[in-house]
Amino acid sequence: MRAIEQMLSATPNRVVDRRLLEDCIEVCVECELTCTGCIDACLGEKDIDPLRKCIRLNQDCADACSLTARILARQFGGDREFVDALLEACIRACTACGTECQSHASRHEHCRICAETCRRCEAQCRILLRALRSVP
Amino acid sequence: MRAIEQMLSATPNRVVDRRLLEDCIEVCVECELTCTGCIDACLGEKDIDPLRKCIRLNQDCADACSLTARILARQFGGDREFVDALLEACIRACTACGTECQSHASRHEHCRICAETCRRCEAQCRILLRALRSVP
Amino acid sequence: MRAIEQMLSATPNRVVDRRLLEDCIEVCVECELTCTGCIDACLGEKDIDPLRKCIRLNQDCADACSLTARILARQFGGDREFVDALLEACIRACTACGTECQSHASRHEHCRICAETCRRCEAQCRILLRALRSVP
Amino acid sequence: MRAIEQMLSATPNRVVDRRLLEDCIEVCVECELTCTGCIDACLGEKDIDPLRKCIRLNQDCADACSLTARILARQFGGDREFVDALLEACIRACTACGTECQSHASRHEHCRICAETCRRCEAQCRILLRALRSVP
Repeated sequence: MRAIEQMLSATPNRVVDRRLLEDCIEVCVECELTCTGCIDACLGEKDIDPLRKCIRLNQDCADACSLTARILARQFGGDREFVDALLEACIRACTACGTECQSHASRHEHCRICAETCRRCEAQCRILLRALRSVP
Repeated sequence: MRAIEQMLSATPNRVVDRRLLEDCIEVCVECELTCTGCIDACLGEKDIDPLRKCIRLNQDCADACSLTARILARQFGGDREFVDALLEACIRACTACGTECQSHASRHEHCRICAETCRRCEAQCRILLRALRSVP
Repeated sequence: MRAIEQMLSATPNRVVDRRLLEDCIEVCVECELTCTGCIDACLGEKDIDPLRKCIRLNQDCADACSLTARILARQFGGDREFVDALLEACIRACTACGTECQSHASRHEHCRICAETCRRCEAQCRILLRALRSVP
Repeated sequence: MRAIEQMLSATPNRVVDRRLLEDCIEVCVECELTCTGCIDACLGEKDIDPLRKCIRLNQDCADACSLTARILARQFGGDREFVDALLEACIRACTACGTECQSHASRHEHCRICAETCRRCEAQCRILLRALRSVP
């Protein structure tokens, strides 16, 4: 997403490496939309019964990732403790959703894709959280 | 909000006292909209200069409270660790925003109202978090 | 929601009657959370099969109402054509979701409550839209 | 965003060309985050005074684009009139925000980037809307 890159370059970012931030924002957005798409695909499945919990956790994960992307796009005057706590919550949402989707991955391609995106998002949030915590 | 009450009554809630949940959802929504209104009032102030950080923290707090209300309205098949972590993040957003708004409370009525709502929201989230943690 | 009332009183609202605005914001928020709760209750129903479309439309309606409440809480420097178009979209989301929920109302109490809230939200948005359009 | 592509391929999309949908989702997300970044950069500007309306319209445009991306990622059982009305609202939000940002583009690089993204998003929404309307 070229415009996000340009925007982050135009904003003086005082806290953390711009590239780390960019990667985390991008994968959060991807995870939001993949989870939204996975709910949608679940609704279209013949046997929706075993996918109830998957739909629930996809909703939470989509919402958590959407919020995280938005907060990370803000650099001015934020509260570091809040950003840390939100990343923790987002990591947990991705773990829970990714685990559930993984359990359906062999039967449903959309769950396989979603599990993989959740894992990538979780990893990227952990990397950013570590980097933020190492800043004095 | 009568409809929320009715809806929570119609949904079997297995985890926590319905009244606690209801109160927390309602104050989260109130806090979301009060923060949104405080940004708006800040944008209309003659001297906007000292209110920049207030606008920033109001944005985060509005977004965090909106997400929290929505997650709390979901009872089926959720992940308890995620709900806990999100409540922690929401508490922190309310603390940061409330403290900033409080510092402008003597000059701006909208900041005084917003600080008070943030404090109520923070308190209610803490009560719910404690109740959730006491459930085996 | 007392805090919303206080906040709207503290903000000079140049365009439309404050009470109309307040009522519309409140029912939008109620509708967002009722739709969220209806999805949740659908996920817990024994026979989820006929409720797929209901879940889909509830998602859209919750998201549209959430956005509408937030936009209406902003008075400073907005674009009137956008507010009008958004109210039109919200009215349509409420109509579609309310009609679907109504068709399940005799079997599911949560759908009955949700249909009723969608109808109220639709009506209140229409009233506000008419008022906004009558402003020169 | 590779995962969105994969997800849309895994979901049978009955209504419109998958590529059109994908492009529109992607630019909506980009526009949401660019507007969020533009607010943030405005808050950091020495002379924030002339940027008040820009902040307001950026908020609306970010919220409208976020909702639109999410709705477009849903294919199952939606209401076509609602999708049309939402695209109309999103187009209007992009026009209003883009015009305002353009007026600051010579002084602020972030406004220039944001104006350009708003224009691209508006154009892509128009293309999709036309395609959707041509479907019987």
